[in-house]
Amino acid sequence: MEKTKKFLLTEKELPTKWYNIVADMSTKPLPMLHPGTKQAIKVEDLYPLFAKDLAEQEMNQTDEWIDIPEEVREKLKIYRPTPLVRAYNLEKALDTPAHIYFKNESVSPVGSHKLNSALAQAYYCKKEGTTNITTETGAGQWGTALSFAAKAFGLELAVYMVKISYEQKPYRRSLMQTWGAQVIASPSMSTKAGRKIITEHPNYQGSLGTAISEAIELAMSTPNCKYTLGSVLNHVSLHQTIIGLEAEKQMEMAGEYPDVVIGCFGGGSNFSGISFPFMRHNIKEGKKTRFVAAEPASCPKLTRGKFEYDFGDEAGYTPLLPMFTLGHNFAPANIHAGGLRYHGAGTIVSQLMKDGLMEAVDIEQLDSFKAGVLFAQTEGIVPAPESAHAIAAAINEALECKKNGTKKTILFNLSGHGLVDMTAYDQYLAGDLVNHSLSNEDIEKNVKQLEHLV
Amino acid sequence: MEKTKKFLLTEKELPTKWYNIVADMSTKPLPMLHPGTKQAIKVEDLYPLFAKDLAEQEMNQTDEWIDIPEEVREKLKIYRPTPLVRAYNLEKALDTPAHIYFKNESVSPVGSHKLNSALAQAYYCKKEGTTNITTETGAGQWGTALSFAAKAFGLELAVYMVKISYEQKPYRRSLMQTWGAQVIASPSMSTKAGRKIITEHPNYQGSLGTAISEAIELAMSTPNCKYTLGSVLNHVSLHQTIIGLEAEKQMEMAGEYPDVVIGCFGGGSNFSGISFPFMRHNIKEGKKTRFVAAEPASCPKLTRGKFEYDFGDEAGYTPLLPMFTLGHNFAPANIHAGGLRYHGAGTIVSQLMKDGLMEAVDIEQLDSFKAGVLFAQTEGIVPAPESAHAIAAAINEALECKKNGTKKTILFNLSGHGLVDMTAYDQYLAGDLVNHSLSNEDIEKNVKQLEHLV
Repeated sequence: MEKTKKFLLTEKELPTKWYNIVADMSTKPLPMLHPGTKQAIKVEDLYPLFAKDLAEQEMNQTDEWIDIPEEVREKLKIYRPTPLVRAYNLEKALDTPAHIYFKNESVSPVGSHKLNSALAQAYYCKKEGTTNITTETGAGQWGTALSFAAKAFGLELAVYMVKISYEQKPYRRSLMQTWGAQVIASPSMSTKAGRKIITEHPNYQGSLGTAISEAIELAMSTPNCKYTLGSVLNHVSLHQTIIGLEAEKQMEMAGEYPDVVIGCFGGGSNFSGISFPFMRHNIKEGKKTRFVAAEPASCPKLTRGKFEYDFGDEAGYTPLLPMFTLGHNFAPANIHAGGLRYHGAGTIVSQLMKDGLMEAVDIEQLDSFKAGVLFAQTEGIVPAPESAHAIAAAINEALECKKNGTKKTILFNLSGHGLVDMTAYDQYLAGDLVNHSLSNEDIEKNVKQLEHLV
Repeated sequence: MEKTKKFLLTEKELPTKWYNIVADMSTKPLPMLHPGTKQAIKVEDLYPLFAKDLAEQEMNQTDEWIDIPEEVREKLKIYRPTPLVRAYNLEKALDTPAHIYFKNESVSPVGSHKLNSALAQAYYCKKEGTTNITTETGAGQWGTALSFAAKAFGLELAVYMVKISYEQKPYRRSLMQTWGAQVIASPSMSTKAGRKIITEHPNYQGSLGTAISEAIELAMSTPNCKYTLGSVLNHVSLHQTIIGLEAEKQMEMAGEYPDVVIGCFGGGSNFSGISFPFMRHNIKEGKKTRFVAAEPASCPKLTRGKFEYDFGDEAGYTPLLPMFTLGHNFAPANIHAGGLRYHGAGTIVSQLMKDGLMEAVDIEQLDSFKAGVLFAQTEGIVPAPESAHAIAAAINEALECKKNGTKKTILFNLSGHGLVDMTAYDQYLAGDLVNHSLSNEDIEKNVKQLEHLV
């Protein structure tokens, strides 16, 4: 019998609802706090910044399922459902008894899973009459996704792109511009937050924290304008659950159920997306699947950070979030997996981590690229440097199976391809990349500052 | 009722045979001639250069259907069957009554249709015990495809990459190296052909013709080594018919049959692939579908070239091919659609053109990018600059339908995405690109030299 490599769903099988894990959590995440009053944020407090529907999704702790609007589903069909793929060639190269599956989010026209939430956010903004939206982007994946989404729903978009990425990743900038967005290198002179940091540090190369501050400031000071974020927040994770919901049906087609589910980890959006739908069976039916977040060793908030209230951005414009964090002014090494260079983890994931419902591993930069090259040479797809962290973690699990002679079913999320990140592979192949170690002192010093926040 | 956007086939529906249109042509293509003797080439003459199975496919004029080896089908399943997509959003933007469909070959992990033939060629080389293969690449799409294919079947590969592309397209080079290929800028000092041209023209930026000469020379002078080519030849078109064979089933799923089939045109591989399976119904059942090759105005062999015997390469190493050509030393303008910068058309297409079974249009560079940006903003996918020529031709057909109030069904091949070609879009958006006109004198001068060849 012919072996099936790709498990495909039809457009009719595209999920009609997102899964809201908070409704099923016995311990809910702690509330976000207003940075001034230190009081729990109410949903109305979020309205000035976010579209109302998104603010409500952000605070929703009761509805397990939330309808995906028909208009969003229509746009999602441009690339969804995405394939679930059995990585036979990788299994063979590793000589492992494990079965390895990956969900291929790289088939999105923007090259990553980010479009899943971008389309939803753009839709809700448009629906309430917003004309302009702002956002920030580090590695550029969220910015490219939102650029197409904004165009698809007829919105004007301004993207603050971390300056070093703006210069090192001209293809990402071109992509955003091709889809019609305005792209500004951050720090910029267009906001107070930007001007302040440029004045104090004239050669500052930018950070995601600063870019967030700029995007929020522009949104707050522009009429009819809302801010959007590509990770960390609850409503982003909600939109990304479409990944795991599809994967659930597809694993059923394959006649298997995952023993381990793996996603790379920056702010948590793709990890949440692949994990939460499966995690609900752990919570509700006592399944024993393990959920593994693969974070970079140079930015290890889950494995070495502290659970504290912290800001989501550098300037402190956001509410205080209860999360595993390295401190909002933590400056991660300039690794190529730019999408994983964020100081904190989303509040849902942080609570799940605290409650032992998931685990985390850290991956060194060189190990991630070694895994990425092996994956490219076996399965054909050059993975995004971010996704290569998930691959490395999956390979470690598969090699453990080989050692122990156990036949586990491993599922990981291929969050995106690396075709726009080839400079990184070039440097890896030339031997120019290194690992970045962090001392405990470095981490403690940064986290210590948080003690006075709340 | 929900509208279906993507028509998908299962892996079981992946074609098991390629379609050989030559068997159905009432006028067969003229024979290739040996450049020395001017006698018709025999299949044995091709054995030193090409794998035996490929040489036989090249000369096969009798078998309408040729089996796709199981090993090739297994590798094709990494990305095939590819989706057929109804371009609802583009139709809406054009306000046309036409139905526009495209076959999405951009989902291949190398980003284009080239992998369809690369996997077949690598397989046949491996099968007969070859250890090393060589090839050339201009824009880089064929080179990247063959790099993965060589790795997939365990072959060593050397790619001669046109020097100007080598320098302007570092991402393409990195991709080939990530998949394990050796990449050499052409002209190089590693061959006689390369040394000669470097000595005579020290600053020569290379051409596809020179790179072909180098790749052939290396193959001929290396033990256990074969040469491979990504377009022009009959066996390449044969392998690409998998595109049209899938599209045929998918159009049936959509309940439509194309009135017009469009492909961009360099050497002919993707045009042949999408067209030939449909053309057989014109030949055998009197269907009236039109087949339109979209070539760049700066390299117009089909619309303004001459049908003559000509070399496939610049140095004159190849057999003489009966084809529409601008002359083997025609130097096309440095447009961004590098894959379309080839002086001649394959012999099958040339014969079909001569016999009125197909037609051709030329597209200016600026029109191709305008179409590419509109496609990106509506359908999400940033097309390769080559594929943008097919989109421009499809848009012209759709606008004609709007003008005349006719409801045609248009099918075009999206041969690849442009994510590795963003420099081109950058320059277009900045207003830095121009059209390249060719005078009749330029063309006639070049073609005149061919009169003495045979």
